[in-house]
Amino acid sequence: MKYTLSVSVENQPGVLSKVSGLFSRRGFNIDSLAVGETEDPAISCITIVVDGDEHIVEQVEKQLNKVIQVIKVRNLTEHGNFLSCELALIKVSCNHKQRTEIMQIAGAMRAKVVDVATNSITLQIAADSERIEALTNLLRPYGIKESICTGTIAMERGVIKAKK
Amino acid sequence: MKYTLSVSVENQPGVLSKVSGLFSRRGFNIDSLAVGETEDPAISCITIVVDGDEHIVEQVEKQLNKVIQVIKVRNLTEHGNFLSCELALIKVSCNHKQRTEIMQIAGAMRAKVVDVATNSITLQIAADSERIEALTNLLRPYGIKESICTGTIAMERGVIKAKK
Repeated sequence: MKYTLSVSVENQPGVLSKVSGLFSRRGFNIDSLAVGETEDPAISCITIVVDGDEHIVEQVEKQLNKVIQVIKVRNLTEHGNFLSCELALIKVSCNHKQRTEIMQIAGAMRAKVVDVATNSITLQIAADSERIEALTNLLRPYGIKESICTGTIAMERGVIKAKK
Repeated sequence: MKYTLSVSVENQPGVLSKVSGLFSRRGFNIDSLAVGETEDPAISCITIVVDGDEHIVEQVEKQLNKVIQVIKVRNLTEHGNFLSCELALIKVSCNHKQRTEIMQIAGAMRAKVVDVATNSITLQIAADSERIEALTNLLRPYGIKESICTGTIAMERGVIKAKK
């Protein structure tokens, strides 16, 4: 099972190195790691997606809480109600005819055309990892020249109060 | 001046820790660091935005090239013609009336409403850092409850051949 952890850390040099080192030393299987800025320039937020069982995730949380610069670790998957998304840039080979097809795929998948060149077209998509994978699969037959995808960022949803 | 470097690395545990450690040990001023997956699961791409002069960036490139798992370092700013974008989630406080205002701002700034709750609304925006900052500034008066932003990812634009 995949767990999404949101880790608030002090924005100091070396924190990312410490946190990522902690995972590599213990051989944890990290699916994705994204470092993000927050509204407070003194605080960064690292979003980590770990693939493993409950026990492994508990271990990860414990280890993270030991790092001095870690302010708070939140297990969003346990919380249950969260938003998550990634951002990808995908450059695809194309000729004249294929360009039209790819632009249609982009429209249907709500990706944005950010660059058109003689033999390639580049799409930008912000979505969950499943939709990005779907788009990548649709584009693969044309030939993907280059693709890059950020890690997942995630946030708890707001609370909806029932009126009595 | 800001420089954007695109670093292809072998997807092995410990590489991120090595690369980020390299920066923190030398006190380089990193503006943003994003780890991304590529089409090839064996290769990751780290996009780094460094703020400094030409000399500092040269030093950074040299140090990066020394890391065994680094496959290629590209200075996209030197190359001159590249796309770059970030992804942000911004949760804003709002009441009934303000919600409409915020949704109008979202529309104008091409941000997407991804969550609506009783006292908050969450927007998602994929854009360059300037536009994300502009949106954040527009939303700040309402009260930003939480915000998170990925680092920059970047890619060279495709080549446009002039027909003779």
